[in-house]
Amino acid sequence: MINVGIIGAGRIGQVHAKSILTGVPEARILSIADPFMKPEVAEWAKSVGIENVYEDYHKILEDERIDAVLICASTNLHAQISLEAIAAGKHIFCEKPIDQTLERIEEVKAALAASPKKLVYQVGFNRRYDHNYRALRKTVEDGKIGEVQFVRVSSRDPEPPPAKYVAVSGGIFMDMMIHDLDMVRYLSGQEVVEVYAQGACLIDPEIGKAGDIDTCTIMLKLANGALATVDGSRKAVYGYDQRGEVFGSKGCATTQNDSASNVVLSTVDGVTGEKPLWFFLERYMGSYQAEVREFIECILKGQDPVTGIEDGLVSVKLAMACLKSLKEDRPVKIDEI
Amino acid sequence: MINVGIIGAGRIGQVHAKSILTGVPEARILSIADPFMKPEVAEWAKSVGIENVYEDYHKILEDERIDAVLICASTNLHAQISLEAIAAGKHIFCEKPIDQTLERIEEVKAALAASPKKLVYQVGFNRRYDHNYRALRKTVEDGKIGEVQFVRVSSRDPEPPPAKYVAVSGGIFMDMMIHDLDMVRYLSGQEVVEVYAQGACLIDPEIGKAGDIDTCTIMLKLANGALATVDGSRKAVYGYDQRGEVFGSKGCATTQNDSASNVVLSTVDGVTGEKPLWFFLERYMGSYQAEVREFIECILKGQDPVTGIEDGLVSVKLAMACLKSLKEDRPVKIDEI
Amino acid sequence: MINVGIIGAGRIGQVHAKSILTGVPEARILSIADPFMKPEVAEWAKSVGIENVYEDYHKILEDERIDAVLICASTNLHAQISLEAIAAGKHIFCEKPIDQTLERIEEVKAALAASPKKLVYQVGFNRRYDHNYRALRKTVEDGKIGEVQFVRVSSRDPEPPPAKYVAVSGGIFMDMMIHDLDMVRYLSGQEVVEVYAQGACLIDPEIGKAGDIDTCTIMLKLANGALATVDGSRKAVYGYDQRGEVFGSKGCATTQNDSASNVVLSTVDGVTGEKPLWFFLERYMGSYQAEVREFIECILKGQDPVTGIEDGLVSVKLAMACLKSLKEDRPVKIDEI
Amino acid sequence: MINVGIIGAGRIGQVHAKSILTGVPEARILSIADPFMKPEVAEWAKSVGIENVYEDYHKILEDERIDAVLICASTNLHAQISLEAIAAGKHIFCEKPIDQTLERIEEVKAALAASPKKLVYQVGFNRRYDHNYRALRKTVEDGKIGEVQFVRVSSRDPEPPPAKYVAVSGGIFMDMMIHDLDMVRYLSGQEVVEVYAQGACLIDPEIGKAGDIDTCTIMLKLANGALATVDGSRKAVYGYDQRGEVFGSKGCATTQNDSASNVVLSTVDGVTGEKPLWFFLERYMGSYQAEVREFIECILKGQDPVTGIEDGLVSVKLAMACLKSLKEDRPVKIDEI
Repeated sequence: MINVGIIGAGRIGQVHAKSILTGVPEARILSIADPFMKPEVAEWAKSVGIENVYEDYHKILEDERIDAVLICASTNLHAQISLEAIAAGKHIFCEKPIDQTLERIEEVKAALAASPKKLVYQVGFNRRYDHNYRALRKTVEDGKIGEVQFVRVSSRDPEPPPAKYVAVSGGIFMDMMIHDLDMVRYLSGQEVVEVYAQGACLIDPEIGKAGDIDTCTIMLKLANGALATVDGSRKAVYGYDQRGEVFGSKGCATTQNDSASNVVLSTVDGVTGEKPLWFFLERYMGSYQAEVREFIECILKGQDPVTGIEDGLVSVKLAMACLKSLKEDRPVKIDEI
Repeated sequence: MINVGIIGAGRIGQVHAKSILTGVPEARILSIADPFMKPEVAEWAKSVGIENVYEDYHKILEDERIDAVLICASTNLHAQISLEAIAAGKHIFCEKPIDQTLERIEEVKAALAASPKKLVYQVGFNRRYDHNYRALRKTVEDGKIGEVQFVRVSSRDPEPPPAKYVAVSGGIFMDMMIHDLDMVRYLSGQEVVEVYAQGACLIDPEIGKAGDIDTCTIMLKLANGALATVDGSRKAVYGYDQRGEVFGSKGCATTQNDSASNVVLSTVDGVTGEKPLWFFLERYMGSYQAEVREFIECILKGQDPVTGIEDGLVSVKLAMACLKSLKEDRPVKIDEI
Repeated sequence: MINVGIIGAGRIGQVHAKSILTGVPEARILSIADPFMKPEVAEWAKSVGIENVYEDYHKILEDERIDAVLICASTNLHAQISLEAIAAGKHIFCEKPIDQTLERIEEVKAALAASPKKLVYQVGFNRRYDHNYRALRKTVEDGKIGEVQFVRVSSRDPEPPPAKYVAVSGGIFMDMMIHDLDMVRYLSGQEVVEVYAQGACLIDPEIGKAGDIDTCTIMLKLANGALATVDGSRKAVYGYDQRGEVFGSKGCATTQNDSASNVVLSTVDGVTGEKPLWFFLERYMGSYQAEVREFIECILKGQDPVTGIEDGLVSVKLAMACLKSLKEDRPVKIDEI
Repeated sequence: MINVGIIGAGRIGQVHAKSILTGVPEARILSIADPFMKPEVAEWAKSVGIENVYEDYHKILEDERIDAVLICASTNLHAQISLEAIAAGKHIFCEKPIDQTLERIEEVKAALAASPKKLVYQVGFNRRYDHNYRALRKTVEDGKIGEVQFVRVSSRDPEPPPAKYVAVSGGIFMDMMIHDLDMVRYLSGQEVVEVYAQGACLIDPEIGKAGDIDTCTIMLKLANGALATVDGSRKAVYGYDQRGEVFGSKGCATTQNDSASNVVLSTVDGVTGEKPLWFFLERYMGSYQAEVREFIECILKGQDPVTGIEDGLVSVKLAMACLKSLKEDRPVKIDEI
C-alpha cells in the first residue's frame, strides 16, 4: 500500500484524488494540502476518508508515512516543491510544466540524479495516457506501420484563452502546442532534430496585441529522417479537435476525435453525428485516471514512468525552438536551444 | 444529503458504491450488507468511509437515518427485500428483474401504490442511461425523425452463457432479449401490442438440449402502428454488439458500438478499426454510474425514475409473449399474457 | 464479337446501349427496336454507329447475324418476346420481372430447357452486380463470416410511387421488396423456406386505399436454419436507403449507402456528411454496366449467369408468399406457393 | 453540336473519347490523330462512329468543321500544338503540364490573349473535377466554414515511379505534388505567397541517387494570411491516399479516400473496410469524364473553364518555388520565381 499526499486541492488536485479513491486500490490518500483550501473541499475530503487536510504542504513532506506526493500547486511552485520533495525522499507526480525555464528543470533533474534513493518522477503529460493516443503509439511500437516516415498532429482548442493569459503563459507554443510537440516524439518514438514554425493571428486581434499568434503550423525533422507537421488553432467552433496520424513503410494509423455519443441522424439536411467533446477534462478524463494509476504502479514495480523528467525538459526546448523559428523566420535546430 | 444503504456487496453492489462515492456528492453510503461479505470488500468499504458493514440487510432497513436502499442481492430476493423496504419507507433502486413471475412484481407494485409515503422505485435497466441509447432516445423525443415508423434493435453477446444457466434463467428472451424488448419501448416511446418470434440453436447444441435457443428474431407491432424487429445472438466473435435504429417520417437515427479506441490502421490487409468493447461492464460502465446518480436526483426532486416498476413489469410480459410465440409459432398479442 | 439487338429503346434500353458501347468491346449493337422510337433516340443511335433502328422487334429476331437480345420492352411483353427469342436461338438478357405469374415464367423456363441450343438467359436483378452487394456476397462466399446465422436487408425508397401504380404493380412485395428478397438468397447463398410478413400504411393513405401497404417487415427462415429480417419503406426523406448485413459464426459483414461525395463538415451544428444518393439509376449505374458486361461474358465463355431464370422464378414466389402471410397473418412456407 | 478532334490516341486520349461518346451528347468526335496509331484503336474508333483516323494531327487543325481539340499528345508537344491550334482558331483542352518551362507557357498565354476569337483554353487538372474535391470546394465557397484559416492536403501514391522517370520528370514537386499545390489554391480560393519545403529519401535509394526525394512536406502562406501544409509520399502500401481538409472560422471540412466497396467486416481480427482505390484512373475516372463535359459546356456557354491557363502557369511556379526552398533550406516567396 502506497501512502499519498496531494499538494494543491484545486480542480486537477481533486481529479487526481477521485482517481485514486476509485481506481487505485493500492494507494491511500493520507493528506491533502492547499493554502486556500475551500471548506466544501475539506469537508468532501473528510467524507471520503482522507485523514488530514492541511494549509501548509510541508506537513505532507514531513510525514514519514507518506511515500509519494502529487504536485498540483500553481506552476511557479512546481520546481520548488519538487526539490523539497526529492530532498524528503518522496516519489513525485508533477503537473506540467515543471518550469518555464530550462535552468530550473535542469536543477530538478540534477537533484533527482543525486538522490540516494531511486525516486519515480512522473510529469503530467496526460495525453500520453489517453486511450486513443496510447493505442496509436502501440500500433507504431508493434511495428504495424513499419518504419516511421511521417507524423501529423492536429490540435485545436474550442475557445481561445483571454489575451491576458497568453501574455504570461509563454504563448501558444509553450502553453498549448507543447502537448502536440510531445505527441510527435511519443507517437514516432523519435527525437526531433529541427523545427520550422509559422504563425498568424486570425482569430482574436487582442491575442496579436499581446504579442502572440492564434494559428500555427510547425514542420519537424526527426532523428531517423522522418518528417512531421503540427497544426494548431486556438478556436475550433465545433469543439476540441485533437487528431494524430503516423505513416510508415507498412501502413498508416490515425486517431479521430471522441464525442459524447455515436448517434447518427439522417434527414433532409444530411447525415449528422455529434461534435467532438468540448471540454478537455471531459475528453481526457480517462487519461487523468490512467496516469495516476500508472504512477503508483511505477513506484510498486520500480519502473520508469512513460513521461519522465526528460520529457518535461525536451518539450520545453521544442516549444522554445518553435518560438525562435517563428521570430527569425528560419528552420531552427534543437541543438541551438 | 441522502443516506444510502447497499444490500448485496457483489460485483454490481461494488460498482454502485463506487459510482456514489465519486459521482454523487449528494449521497453518502452509511452501510453495506451482504451475508457472504468478503473480508477485502469489508476492508475497502471501511477505507472509503462507509460506516457500517453488515451481514444482515435488515440492519439497514431498521436504520432510520437511511433514506434509500440499493437492492443488489440475488434475483430471488429482489421482490422480498423490495416489499420489506417499502414497508420501512425507503426509496428503492432494485436490480432487474424484480422477479421472474408477474404475480410477485404485481405484489410489489401494489405495495408501492399503497405506501403512505411517495417512494421512488427505480429498476436497473441500465441501458436506458447509456450515452448512446439516451442520445438516440433524445433525438426521437425531440421530433427529429418525425413520427416513428420502424425500430430495429440488434443485440449480440460476445459469448454464450453455460447451458446450465439458460436452464434456470428463463431462457434467451427472459435473461437477454428483455433488455432489447425494453429498448424498443424506450426508443420509440410506444407500447408493444403484438410480437412474433423465431429462434434457432446454431451456436451451442448444449443450449438446445437445455431447451433454449441461441439465435432469435422478433417482429413487433407498436401502438401507433409502427413496426419493429429485434435480432439476437448469444455469440458474436468480434465482441459485444449492441446497435439500434429508429426510422420515421422525417429521418432515421442509429447508434453504433463503442470500442476501446478509435485508431484506424491502413495496411495491405485493409483499413481496420478496433472491435467493439467485449465486456458488458466496460461497455456500460457510464450507464451504471448515470442510473445511480439519477436515482438520488429523483429522490431529491420528487421525480419519477426513467425506469420505474411498470417498465420492470412490461418487459417481463414481452419476454413471456415472445416465448409463447416461439412455442406456438404464431403472432401473440401482449394482452394475451 | 457478339452481335446484339436491343428490344425497347426507353430509359433502361438506352442505359444498356451505352454500357455496351463504352464498356463491352466484345459486343457490337447491330440494331435497336421500339414501336414508339423517339426521333432523338434514333438519331443518337445512328451517331454512335448502331446500324438499324426498327419499330418492329421481329426484325431483330429474324436477323441471323444477331447472337443476343436485350429485352427492355414493357413488362407484359417480357415472357412473349422471351419465348420468341428462344425459338429464334438468341441468347437473352431480360429485364425483371419475367412475368407477374408463375405460369408464364414456367413456360419460358420449359422453352429454355427444350431449346436444342444452350442459351444464356439472364434476368436483370441488377443489384447482384452492385459493387457493395457483390463485395458483401464475396465476403460471405469466401467463408470470412463462417456459417451464416442471420441476414438483414433494409430497403427504403426516397419517394412513394403514385397510388395508381401500386394498384397494378402487384404491390410493395412484388414491385419493390422482390429485390430485397432476392438479396437474402444472394447474400446468404441459402434458399428461403418460410416467411412471415407484417405491413402498415403510415406514409400515404392513398396507397392504403389502393389496397397496399407502404411500410413492411419480413421475417424469414433459411434452409440451413439461419434467420433473416427484411424491412422496407416507400419513403425515406434522406434518400435511397439500401443496406445489408450478414452475420455468422466467424463474424459479421455489412454494407452502407453510397453518397455523391465523402465530404464531412464539422460546425456548431454537428459533424455532417452527405445524404445517400437519391435516384436509383445514379446509385446503381455501376451495376447496370456490370450486368450487361457479364451477360456477354457468359455467352463467350458458355457460363451460367449470376441471375438466371430460376432466380426470376423464386423471387416471384417469395413475394407471393409474403403477400399471403400478410393477408392470413401467419407464417407461410414457400412450398405452399 | 460541337465537332471535336482528339490529338493523341494513347490511354488518356481514349479515356476522353469514351467520355464524349457516352456523356456529352452535345459533342461529336469527327477525327482522332496519332503518329503511332495502334490498329485496334483505329478499328475501335471506326466502330463507334469516328469518321477520320489520322497519323498527322495537322489534318485535324486544318479541318474547318472542327471547333475544338483535345491535346493528349506527349508533354513536349503540348505547347507547340497549343500554339498551332490557337492560330487555327480551335478551342483547346490541353493535358497538364502545358510545359515544364514558364517561358513556353507564357508564350501560349500571350497567343491566347492575342487571338481575335475568344477561345476556351482548359488545362487538364482533373482533380478539380473530382466529386469529393469539388464538393469540398463548394462547401468552402458557400461560406460554410467561414474565413479560411488552414488547409491541409495529403497525397500518397501507391507505388514510386522508376528512378529513371524522376530524373526527367522534374522531380516530386513537378510531377506529383503539382496537383496538391493546385489543390491548396483551389480549395482555399487563395493565392499562395510563400512556401517552405522539406524532403527525404526514405523509400527508394535509387530515387535519391537520381537526385530526387520520395517523401516531402510543404508549408504555405496564403494571400489572406491563412496557413497550409501539404505532405507527400511516393509509396503508401495500402493504396492511393488522397485527402484534404479546410478549416476556418465557422468549421472544418474534410474529404476521405474512395474505395471499391463500403463493406465492413467484423471478426476476431478487428473491424475492417476496404483499402483506398489503388489506380489513379479508377479513382479519378469520374473527374476525367466531368472535365471533358465541362469543356464542351464552356464552349457552348462562352464561359471560362475552372482550370485555365493561369492555373497551369501558377502551379508550375509553385513547384519551382518548393524545389528552390528545399535546395536553399529557407522559405521562398512566389514572387522570387
